[in-house]
Amino acid sequence: MSKLTDVPKRILIGRALRSDKLGETLLPKRIALPVFASDPLSSVAYAPGEVLLVLSIAGVSAYHFSPWIAVAVVVLMFTVVASYRQNVHAYPSGGGDYEVANTNLGPKAGLTVASALLVDYVLTVAVSISSGVENLGSAIPFVVEHKVLCAIGIIVLLTLMNLRGVKESGKLFAIPTYVFVAGVFIMIAYGAYRSLVVGDTMHAPTSDFEIKPEHQGLAGFALVFLLLRAFSSGCAALTGVEAISNGVPAFRKPKSKNAASTLALMGALAVTMFCGIIGLAMATDVKMAENPAKDLLDNGVAVGSGYVQDPVISQVAAAVFGDGTFFFVLLAAATALVLFLAANTAYNGFPLLGSILAQDRYLPRQLHTRGDRLAFSNGIVLLAGAAILLVWIYGADSTKLIQLYIVGVFVSFTLSQIGMVRHWNRHLRTEKDPAARRRMVRSRAINTFGAFFTGLVLVVVLATKFTHGAWVALLGMVIFYGTMSAIRKHYDRVAEEIAADEGPSDDSVRPSRVHSIVLVSKVHKPTLRALAFAKLTRSDKLEALSISVDPAETKALREEWERRGINVPLKILDSPYREITRPIIDYVKGLRRESPRDAISVYIPEYVVGHWYEHLLHNQSALRLKGRLLFTPGVMVTSVPYQLQSSELAKERAKKRQEWHAPGAVRRGPVDRRPKENSGGKR
Amino acid sequence: MSKLTDVPKRILIGRALRSDKLGETLLPKRIALPVFASDPLSSVAYAPGEVLLVLSIAGVSAYHFSPWIAVAVVVLMFTVVASYRQNVHAYPSGGGDYEVANTNLGPKAGLTVASALLVDYVLTVAVSISSGVENLGSAIPFVVEHKVLCAIGIIVLLTLMNLRGVKESGKLFAIPTYVFVAGVFIMIAYGAYRSLVVGDTMHAPTSDFEIKPEHQGLAGFALVFLLLRAFSSGCAALTGVEAISNGVPAFRKPKSKNAASTLALMGALAVTMFCGIIGLAMATDVKMAENPAKDLLDNGVAVGSGYVQDPVISQVAAAVFGDGTFFFVLLAAATALVLFLAANTAYNGFPLLGSILAQDRYLPRQLHTRGDRLAFSNGIVLLAGAAILLVWIYGADSTKLIQLYIVGVFVSFTLSQIGMVRHWNRHLRTEKDPAARRRMVRSRAINTFGAFFTGLVLVVVLATKFTHGAWVALLGMVIFYGTMSAIRKHYDRVAEEIAADEGPSDDSVRPSRVHSIVLVSKVHKPTLRALAFAKLTRSDKLEALSISVDPAETKALREEWERRGINVPLKILDSPYREITRPIIDYVKGLRRESPRDAISVYIPEYVVGHWYEHLLHNQSALRLKGRLLFTPGVMVTSVPYQLQSSELAKERAKKRQEWHAPGAVRRGPVDRRPKENSGGKR
Repeated sequence: MSKLTDVPKRILIGRALRSDKLGETLLPKRIALPVFASDPLSSVAYAPGEVLLVLSIAGVSAYHFSPWIAVAVVVLMFTVVASYRQNVHAYPSGGGDYEVANTNLGPKAGLTVASALLVDYVLTVAVSISSGVENLGSAIPFVVEHKVLCAIGIIVLLTLMNLRGVKESGKLFAIPTYVFVAGVFIMIAYGAYRSLVVGDTMHAPTSDFEIKPEHQGLAGFALVFLLLRAFSSGCAALTGVEAISNGVPAFRKPKSKNAASTLALMGALAVTMFCGIIGLAMATDVKMAENPAKDLLDNGVAVGSGYVQDPVISQVAAAVFGDGTFFFVLLAAATALVLFLAANTAYNGFPLLGSILAQDRYLPRQLHTRGDRLAFSNGIVLLAGAAILLVWIYGADSTKLIQLYIVGVFVSFTLSQIGMVRHWNRHLRTEKDPAARRRMVRSRAINTFGAFFTGLVLVVVLATKFTHGAWVALLGMVIFYGTMSAIRKHYDRVAEEIAADEGPSDDSVRPSRVHSIVLVSKVHKPTLRALAFAKLTRSDKLEALSISVDPAETKALREEWERRGINVPLKILDSPYREITRPIIDYVKGLRRESPRDAISVYIPEYVVGHWYEHLLHNQSALRLKGRLLFTPGVMVTSVPYQLQSSELAKERAKKRQEWHAPGAVRRGPVDRRPKENSGGKR
Repeated sequence: MSKLTDVPKRILIGRALRSDKLGETLLPKRIALPVFASDPLSSVAYAPGEVLLVLSIAGVSAYHFSPWIAVAVVVLMFTVVASYRQNVHAYPSGGGDYEVANTNLGPKAGLTVASALLVDYVLTVAVSISSGVENLGSAIPFVVEHKVLCAIGIIVLLTLMNLRGVKESGKLFAIPTYVFVAGVFIMIAYGAYRSLVVGDTMHAPTSDFEIKPEHQGLAGFALVFLLLRAFSSGCAALTGVEAISNGVPAFRKPKSKNAASTLALMGALAVTMFCGIIGLAMATDVKMAENPAKDLLDNGVAVGSGYVQDPVISQVAAAVFGDGTFFFVLLAAATALVLFLAANTAYNGFPLLGSILAQDRYLPRQLHTRGDRLAFSNGIVLLAGAAILLVWIYGADSTKLIQLYIVGVFVSFTLSQIGMVRHWNRHLRTEKDPAARRRMVRSRAINTFGAFFTGLVLVVVLATKFTHGAWVALLGMVIFYGTMSAIRKHYDRVAEEIAADEGPSDDSVRPSRVHSIVLVSKVHKPTLRALAFAKLTRSDKLEALSISVDPAETKALREEWERRGINVPLKILDSPYREITRPIIDYVKGLRRESPRDAISVYIPEYVVGHWYEHLLHNQSALRLKGRLLFTPGVMVTSVPYQLQSSELAKERAKKRQEWHAPGAVRRGPVDRRPKENSGGKR
């Protein structure tokens, strides 16, 4: 595999860097921008198209509302960016929206945000990959003809790369992102030059088409509803903005300040690109329809189901640069690449959020180990599986998938901003310094407006998109929420059960003596080692125990025991049914009954092997016996390992595994020993 | 499940008997006969049809060869029965053909027989169920219309019943078998009476049909070959004869003598039924064709693919009793039931043979526990899976499946008889008593003839059936053989590796002191128990070890440790990456490096839970840590269990599981402590 995936890996992610120090490298702003902005900036590849597409329902005349919708999106973007600049200053620990909601609004709000974010990560992968495939398809027809297959193929590729543990390099994030941003800006500038200075009339490939409105002459409430729906779709441009608030620890000092300026820069770039593309789309007469096969007319005839509707950004590029030109292909490739990078960020974010949730015991405890390979792999596979399912169900159609996308984003925006308002209220209660108070009041005002505005958008999104697919996202959130609260409830119940009593009362029932039993089947090295170890840890009574399933073998064992003069008494239990477990359990229970204050220590020689199939051939009886012994109170079970030669192989494999590092370290920054008071919600 | 399967269970197997003593009950001959004979006697339900079917290739005129073929089958049956009567006397331990071949011809021959028997068990299920469905279908058309579905359904039902552990009762085997035998005899007698005394002309449903010969006017070698093929097919009547030789321990004393007479009785019944059915088929003009759709002509027109060819036994019953009469339906039901019982015997035989093979280390060691539930379940599921696959591939067509069947049977017949010849030769070398010598010479003559005759049949079967499907059975045998020898080779290599050295030289590298480490995450009951147990087993050094993944939690742990005054030093390791495993492994390795003669004993508090999903939530880090620690030489790992309340549930389940008994105990008899010299092949 390593060879096969090397080429696409270098193209997509860049050469894997082996330095163990990379995770500790702090990001300068010029690198931090592309690292965190690939997700939000890539949104402009699909958001403008979604706006036009919804407006087309009322006919092409409704397109003249698009600048107003763009303005609304810009205002919203500024609001969200301004709000998150406050978050970044107040919570520099990288906990993000989950931390803000958990700390200020309590665990239920935190868990809601977490569920929304988990759903969002899945949709980031599904939407970005689908949109990337559509953009790539505008240059390479094969890709769009096998859309679902290509999309799933790319998800599988990303999954394999991430499972293998490819390290991200900030610099290699930078190239496609900067190429993409530069390409869009050049396109806007060149388009404006051709249109305004030279006076060219540019024509998009769809400029001659007509649109058959699904609803002719919409007015009043219906029109408002449609405009709100178009605005909701445009809000897709905001997805990913919150990413920086998770990544503050990765910035150079002053961390919060640098993160805030990067956030502002990203916002400025995003709105310029968004507006520029919408403007060019208007100037070049791009036509987008929700059902192009039916509603897009070429000389009065519907284009039919064979027609592929290219994304707005590629149609505009075709009009400005010319279809198939170098710049056109470069921009299509850069757009696709940035979208794939955006999907890749979800591969890092999903397990990271999982580890934070595990720390708060909403997910299995062992996931909390940061960068733990197993946890990481499980997360990656779950994420990829869910994304593939969605891509498959929705035919890799980014327009349909976007309907699911925006709900989760705005749930976390809104709850995070409400949390911030509470945060400032709490601090204002204790803060005495007038200058600090003034800053806090200002921040609170920004967050209040942010909470209000994003909340409003959430309502609009829910109202206009619920039946279009938002319910699927809500269902996903409910499932995550239910599972995680059940897990937390279980852990809480167990914690209560095992809480240590105060005082030394426990000592009264403590065993007073220990009776050790070494299980023996034959006299061989593993048995001798187990005997030696058992003798070493001195117990009050030590005996060897063997189960007789074959009289001849038992006789041979007894003889060898005496011949070797092993100075441990050998006890033999008869097992007429050739059972192993039951006689031992019965014997141990009998010992406990005789002297209830004795603890029993059972030594089991265990083979350490190198291949999975060898496990099927060894230790199975021992494992089962151990499983049953653990149910017997007052018993402890000691495995005395004997390393077979083949175990060397497994040791090598384990060493290699240890060299593995979870991808995404660049975005996370060095390990933060975050102060307790900000991490909240833990006991 | 228990409710749903109760009704068919009572019908098929009878009420489950709870008595623990049942396995110890010895069988009188009148019960032993049906218990062991359901398999061989049920063969007469399909064997006569197979003979006619093959003959029909040369046209209906070839049917006049069928009495000769019946005679050949009868001679073969007498030979095999006579030979196995010798086996039963010489090997009363129930090891059967595997034991005979293994002891006398060496492990390779034994393994070949074992592979053949394993394949045969699979085919017994596939053939018997398919044939049973066909017989049932002659009375209930629905069944034969959904043949594959019904066959798989019955296999699944049998599998569930066997997995649940239904106890066989000898008496409930008896009823369907005796009804079947009585039914067939009444049919033969009544048919003979109607035909010979009354002078009725009876007509089978197919008596008016004509057969289009696939090869007109066969003669010379081609005809001989066809007759040999028909004979091979008739040999299907012999399948299952060897069953009694596995079941000698289940007989009342004198075991061998009773088994031998039962064998003789069974042979007599089988040949009478076989010949009677063939005779009636001739008298009632039954027509069977290999491809009925094409070659069976009704008034000169092919009957087409919609036609269902009923088994000979049901066609004869229709002619003698009349189609749809009470006796007809009763016989069809009894036939189907006996065939299903025959399939059920494979469910007992397969895991039993598995346990014998495991004892000789050809299969994973843990399977050798007799009646072990897990081993039994794995065997059952493997058997059922393979049978379902065959039924599905071959469309539940008993004729096609029988092509695969007979090879394995004759491989074990032949090897077993050759083994017996060797057995007598060996004994004749030492035996001095003239009377005993005379008996042995006589037995040797019988076995020699048996070996020769069954070997000849094996060659005929291979020659005439190889391309018809016997190659599939051979392939199955090769796969079993290869797997089992690989497993044995592995065990032998390991046994050599772990063989204890002679003398006390081992002691020189033995550790001299033990350093105990108790892993601690928090101060709670499981930790306190682990500490108490560790203190109890006195070691040279004892410390508690905790991994710091969160400074606040670590501080709290330290404080509680001091507050409680726990008199064990607490060592805390920093883990900046929130890893658990690596720091502990490194620490342990460091200790080993400092004092290589110290053994390290690691105590891990372990939660004992009741549900599988709770396992996902607990102990995962501990398990992984344990897996890694075992690779480190000089370390032993002690699990100190803490039983959570939910573990009570699992304890209950375990208790219930303990009450489980592997089905088939009736056929096996009480546990035999067989003397070493006869079990052979072991070291």
